[in-house]
Amino acid sequence: MIKTDILIIGAGPTGLFAVFEAGLLQLKCHLIDALPQAGGQCSEIYPKKPIYDIPGYPEVLAGDLVDNLMEQIKPFQPGFTLGERAETIEKLEDGSFIVTTNKGTKHHAPVVAIAGGLGSFEPRKPLLKDLEKYEDNGVAYMIKEPEIYRGKKVLIAGGGDSALDWSIFLADIAKEVTLVHRRNEFRGALDSVEKVQQLKNEGKINLITPAEVVALKGESQLEKVTVKDTATSEEKDVEVDNFIPLFGLSPKLGSISNWGLEIEKNAIKVDNTYDYQTNIPGIYAIGDVNTYPGKLKLILCGFHEATLMCQSAYQKIFPDKKYVMKYTTVGGVTGFDGSKKEAPKAVVKAID
Amino acid sequence: MIKTDILIIGAGPTGLFAVFEAGLLQLKCHLIDALPQAGGQCSEIYPKKPIYDIPGYPEVLAGDLVDNLMEQIKPFQPGFTLGERAETIEKLEDGSFIVTTNKGTKHHAPVVAIAGGLGSFEPRKPLLKDLEKYEDNGVAYMIKEPEIYRGKKVLIAGGGDSALDWSIFLADIAKEVTLVHRRNEFRGALDSVEKVQQLKNEGKINLITPAEVVALKGESQLEKVTVKDTATSEEKDVEVDNFIPLFGLSPKLGSISNWGLEIEKNAIKVDNTYDYQTNIPGIYAIGDVNTYPGKLKLILCGFHEATLMCQSAYQKIFPDKKYVMKYTTVGGVTGFDGSKKEAPKAVVKAID
Repeated sequence: MIKTDILIIGAGPTGLFAVFEAGLLQLKCHLIDALPQAGGQCSEIYPKKPIYDIPGYPEVLAGDLVDNLMEQIKPFQPGFTLGERAETIEKLEDGSFIVTTNKGTKHHAPVVAIAGGLGSFEPRKPLLKDLEKYEDNGVAYMIKEPEIYRGKKVLIAGGGDSALDWSIFLADIAKEVTLVHRRNEFRGALDSVEKVQQLKNEGKINLITPAEVVALKGESQLEKVTVKDTATSEEKDVEVDNFIPLFGLSPKLGSISNWGLEIEKNAIKVDNTYDYQTNIPGIYAIGDVNTYPGKLKLILCGFHEATLMCQSAYQKIFPDKKYVMKYTTVGGVTGFDGSKKEAPKAVVKAID
Repeated sequence: MIKTDILIIGAGPTGLFAVFEAGLLQLKCHLIDALPQAGGQCSEIYPKKPIYDIPGYPEVLAGDLVDNLMEQIKPFQPGFTLGERAETIEKLEDGSFIVTTNKGTKHHAPVVAIAGGLGSFEPRKPLLKDLEKYEDNGVAYMIKEPEIYRGKKVLIAGGGDSALDWSIFLADIAKEVTLVHRRNEFRGALDSVEKVQQLKNEGKINLITPAEVVALKGESQLEKVTVKDTATSEEKDVEVDNFIPLFGLSPKLGSISNWGLEIEKNAIKVDNTYDYQTNIPGIYAIGDVNTYPGKLKLILCGFHEATLMCQSAYQKIFPDKKYVMKYTTVGGVTGFDGSKKEAPKAVVKAID
């Protein structure tokens, strides 16, 4: 059982910044995220895209923003349960919560902050017979550890950046990379498209277009996929170890929508007049996952909500303590790792 | 008469970021500030101090944060009325406002956003007979244009960073710099104290401690000040062109407190359930100047408040238009100066 002060569901920018504000109050945080790394959409969907509306950054790449936040919260040593989805929540008699993931990992905390963005990102799956049978037996929808494809025959389907970028990446690792797309045109960064063209010319990527995978074959493990030329309707079998359809991720609120929280338009209603708490005392919702009158789904708003949430969480965890806010410029930042950052102190010194 | 869409009173970080969010909505802003430069406290009081709680910045100097904000809002070409204090406000029949400064500059806008921080910074003045008579006739409390002291005999009083730093700066410009402080000990950055010691040793700064200025003399223009040695009580006259007491700035809400706004604990009450509007429709208050349940006087909260305020201001200015928010990562930023920043576009390109 993992124990913490604030259990944060969702490790996007809002969840990460909550760790910092909690840390200033000497509260420890642990984060759960369905994605294999921290950063949410910023890391998974658009790490190389610039964001222009982070205050104080005329321009920052989404991936760099996440790196900076990770650096900022480092002194407060957050815990992470990554690649797992928060599934169930149980309220104990003392008002604290136990949250269990789809892999059975249990977390115990007096306060839960849902910073789930648009929901946990679920891959869009192709409609294929027996698809589920081959999941974890040759079929995957996300690449978590590229090394497992070393020496394998991999077939990727898709026409966007993920399909292009992973085809390029695996061309060096896998024994064989085949890229299947239902059009001849790919949509992605210019240099990615050009790189795939080059690898195809060099014979390092097999390209089959316009085509789609229409059947999966194999005893228990995937052995072959049937690829249909969509222009001629001809079908042929391709021997593969792995089939990775990369058709995009679509966010789903998922199990959280069964936790008894008030939901409106796929978002969690919160009390924006005070602390962004939900209808269940002790559960907060911050960032894109929440809704209230005038809500804007902006990262900078999530930062504010996270900060007010932490103050309220502190009062909930320590009802008898009175917290007096100190400015970081005056009081510095003292990490749980013993680190200390502070402004250079003024000296008092005679001049003679 | 200066005309704009949103008239922002206070050019600190919150006021500056409001320009950006307004700009995304194609609204123009003009800022009034009593200080001679933008940035509020960050520029005037602690430009060289690190701030640790700006989201995405593990550490940023207050002065650098202001520089970055100025760079971020540049495409939206804000206007500035600096070194003047907003004094009076008049509501016209059409619901718009005219704000006049202490120097008589008039501004006309349909929306006013007060981002006044802790108030406008007023210098702490020494208690001296005829002090007001010499104001603008040799006595000043802030240095706006150091060049006017070229070739002059200047006496600075004070024992903090401002007194130290301006003594150092003017030592190169003025004919004579005298520094008077009631103690032998100065309180400031170590290198400033050491530099003053060195300039004193070189004869470039006259140091008189422990001492204080007890009288001002001169026909209409300041000619002499009387300096009293506080150890021996001996008094002597020093010939000067300028006397600059730098005893710190103290923030005062000032005239704004007479505008009919609901005030609580020296801050302006706002509607935090929606748009940070005050009790007077069309007047908003954002950042440290406002108060509401759970209010935290943090820069990051001001950023959020500024953003929601701009959405509400847009609806007020264009009641018939429906604004659909576009993310900067998707839609880019189009400046009023014709500039355009946007993420590199994906290409759609065949691979053959």
